[in-house]
Amino acid sequence: MKKIILSVNAGSSSVKVSVYEATAHSSPTQLAEAQVSGLTSPPPKLSYTRGGHKVAKDKELDEGGGNDKGSGEGKVAAQSDAFRIILSTLTNDKELAQIDAKDDIAIVVHRIVHGGDFRSAQVINQATYHRLEALNDLAPLHNAPSLEIVKNCMEQLPQATNVACFDSQFHASIPLHVRTYPIDQEIAKKNGLRKYGFHGISYSFITRTAAEFLGKPVEKVNLIALHLGSGASACAIKGGKSWDTSMGLTPLAGLPGATRSGSIDPSLVFHYASDVGKLSPASTKELHISLAETILNKQAGWKALTGTTNFGTIAESADPKHKLAFDLFVDRICGFVGSYFVALRGQVDALVFAGGIGEKSDRLRKAVVDQCACLGFEIDDAKNETQAEEETSKVTRELSSAAAAAGQQQRDGSRRAALRVLIVQTDEQYEMAHAAAQDPPLWADWDEVPDLESLKVQGEHQ
Amino acid sequence: MKKIILSVNAGSSSVKVSVYEATAHSSPTQLAEAQVSGLTSPPPKLSYTRGGHKVAKDKELDEGGGNDKGSGEGKVAAQSDAFRIILSTLTNDKELAQIDAKDDIAIVVHRIVHGGDFRSAQVINQATYHRLEALNDLAPLHNAPSLEIVKNCMEQLPQATNVACFDSQFHASIPLHVRTYPIDQEIAKKNGLRKYGFHGISYSFITRTAAEFLGKPVEKVNLIALHLGSGASACAIKGGKSWDTSMGLTPLAGLPGATRSGSIDPSLVFHYASDVGKLSPASTKELHISLAETILNKQAGWKALTGTTNFGTIAESADPKHKLAFDLFVDRICGFVGSYFVALRGQVDALVFAGGIGEKSDRLRKAVVDQCACLGFEIDDAKNETQAEEETSKVTRELSSAAAAAGQQQRDGSRRAALRVLIVQTDEQYEMAHAAAQDPPLWADWDEVPDLESLKVQGEHQ
Repeated sequence: MKKIILSVNAGSSSVKVSVYEATAHSSPTQLAEAQVSGLTSPPPKLSYTRGGHKVAKDKELDEGGGNDKGSGEGKVAAQSDAFRIILSTLTNDKELAQIDAKDDIAIVVHRIVHGGDFRSAQVINQATYHRLEALNDLAPLHNAPSLEIVKNCMEQLPQATNVACFDSQFHASIPLHVRTYPIDQEIAKKNGLRKYGFHGISYSFITRTAAEFLGKPVEKVNLIALHLGSGASACAIKGGKSWDTSMGLTPLAGLPGATRSGSIDPSLVFHYASDVGKLSPASTKELHISLAETILNKQAGWKALTGTTNFGTIAESADPKHKLAFDLFVDRICGFVGSYFVALRGQVDALVFAGGIGEKSDRLRKAVVDQCACLGFEIDDAKNETQAEEETSKVTRELSSAAAAAGQQQRDGSRRAALRVLIVQTDEQYEMAHAAAQDPPLWADWDEVPDLESLKVQGEHQ
Repeated sequence: MKKIILSVNAGSSSVKVSVYEATAHSSPTQLAEAQVSGLTSPPPKLSYTRGGHKVAKDKELDEGGGNDKGSGEGKVAAQSDAFRIILSTLTNDKELAQIDAKDDIAIVVHRIVHGGDFRSAQVINQATYHRLEALNDLAPLHNAPSLEIVKNCMEQLPQATNVACFDSQFHASIPLHVRTYPIDQEIAKKNGLRKYGFHGISYSFITRTAAEFLGKPVEKVNLIALHLGSGASACAIKGGKSWDTSMGLTPLAGLPGATRSGSIDPSLVFHYASDVGKLSPASTKELHISLAETILNKQAGWKALTGTTNFGTIAESADPKHKLAFDLFVDRICGFVGSYFVALRGQVDALVFAGGIGEKSDRLRKAVVDQCACLGFEIDDAKNETQAEEETSKVTRELSSAAAAAGQQQRDGSRRAALRVLIVQTDEQYEMAHAAAQDPPLWADWDEVPDLESLKVQGEHQ
């Protein structure tokens, strides 16, 4: 039986929903995709694509609800407003035959950044929902927008099964000595202070896709994966599972990002401003965010260095400030590549670039691979400079030289041949739908939503 | 002309003074060494060695001034009390012929942890002293004990030249993109927020000593150096100069230590306790120390994981808590080795172990080198297990296999032969005296103390 699956991805200023059709254990087929962006920089805009056809692109939604498909639901400021507009866009689109009414939507998978101790995706019922709310304490900046949509969905789509898919769950396999912080362990346990890691939905997609491309079973593939976007992280994947990753208790640790400092001296913020322990104006009655966390998450990164959050501009510019940001980012990335090469004992099948910057910036890829040449990585300049647009049908692209691609790598540790370098066009929306399609409980007949029944994700199947 | 040089090293609970005799541009000869320890765990104890002969070992100093050499100066609680006792021990020792009176001491070199923007050692006059006081804001936990002794010395030894030697100065060569934190650069500049790095006096000694052992000019030597003690750090040394190091704005960043967390998610401490931005009870009217900094510097590290600060105990224990601390430390060290291997583009002359743990723990060395075997490092188990006591005369020991020691390393990037692994018995006291002996202004005739005249350190000569 075919079911309609929505994958919902709420960011701080946008909501993206992808629509899939799938049967149990199949690869989902995308039917449509809708996005409302600009929530924090009005006017908000709607983009809508159905079956590869662009129905709307950056269509302004004015305060009265400018969506001509009849959303008419007033002000569009919150993530839940955006979701309502997307939902009415989908149900009102006559040419989207698979959705006539809300009842046609069987499964809604929500990307939730911080999953705390959840090791796998969760069907959301009242109990799960309260556990998700409790996680807001650990990730007030990151989880709140998604939870608002979850709540909205439970009300508006009562017949659908809501599933929470966590960006941290892929990293549940990180070993104890890697995920532990050397601090008081009683407080650590009580307050849930350990490395969780994020971008896991993307790393799950990357692992499955790269393994397939390399012709290896997932459980045998070792990768150094770089998800480089406005949020950036690195991951050491050993035997298909996360061994280490650069983000930590929160997405702040590790690599810098568009507005995020990444790892810095933990005492720095106390020398940055006075009263950094006080509540930030971003706090609400329920959510306590320190001024320090706002400074380091929202007022740092390459925006602080250059004034722009657009890494494309930075990578192409000769301005010394831009050059500094570029060199700094490359330096920190290469640090993680070296570190994870050792963590994987040199047994690396490929270095994988993903995320907006990883896919688009050939200058960044070249700088990283050149600096890591001593580890055995090599890039073919012509392949690297070929833009993705020219071969969009390929999810994975090989950037290595012919010799490396032909598998001439030595396995005796001498690494005389080049190690492979790939680009994977990661797709978190697809990964969530794919995980849902593979999950038996979601396809069984049931009377009640199973209590805390887990949705397995790739990486836990092994 | 021979001069007497004292090297003074003040820690949080001890003061150590080494006495040297030197002529200009010579290698100083050690005459004696005195240490008062246990300042924070009374009774304080004096150890005193003259010409290789142990005159006193852990002699308890009671409140009335138990030093039988006539210190009789009352309560011994502060670093300045300890220094006074050491000074009277030296001047009253009839068998220490070179020091009859205080006037015989020509140069006193003080180890100061945080040197801020000072790129080289400084002769201390009133102006310098005030600049040193201002640095306390950046490193209240680290600089204060030393400054107390500097003040004391300026009063008690008015005829001597006081020199400040900074643990950060060796790292003045760290390039801009490595030392910059991706935060608001106006605030960074105003508040002096950048990577400084520490353990530099030790890295200066290690670089000179390893270069000599390897038969290379200092300016051509590339090392990955690990100073592993109760404070631990790693350093990438390129062409004899610091390229990167694991500590940052303060000694908190990087590797964990006995009571220090090392790098953690910068937002962690805000989830550890409430009010972490408030002043710690360790603060004084002049020195503002946040509760967070006290927690992360004094209540973390392997003490928090295991209950002990003795890494020897941890390394030999089968207790799961000890094993966790050991594995965690090895993991973090190997991360820096991998990272710095890439920073040095694989052109590494040797991996160097130093510091108390680096010198003593063969288990730690073996674990690190084994995990880094994929980079080409190799250790000879028999050499590694030979205790330093059996060959104390050797400052540098080779742990690599005969092939690596014989220089069979390939230079074409293939690294088929093993890279070398050394232990260097680092000696910060000697390094400070050595730097003073090499400094022309300190040996010229002058009427006044030269204003801010700089003392060059090795690493800046190149």
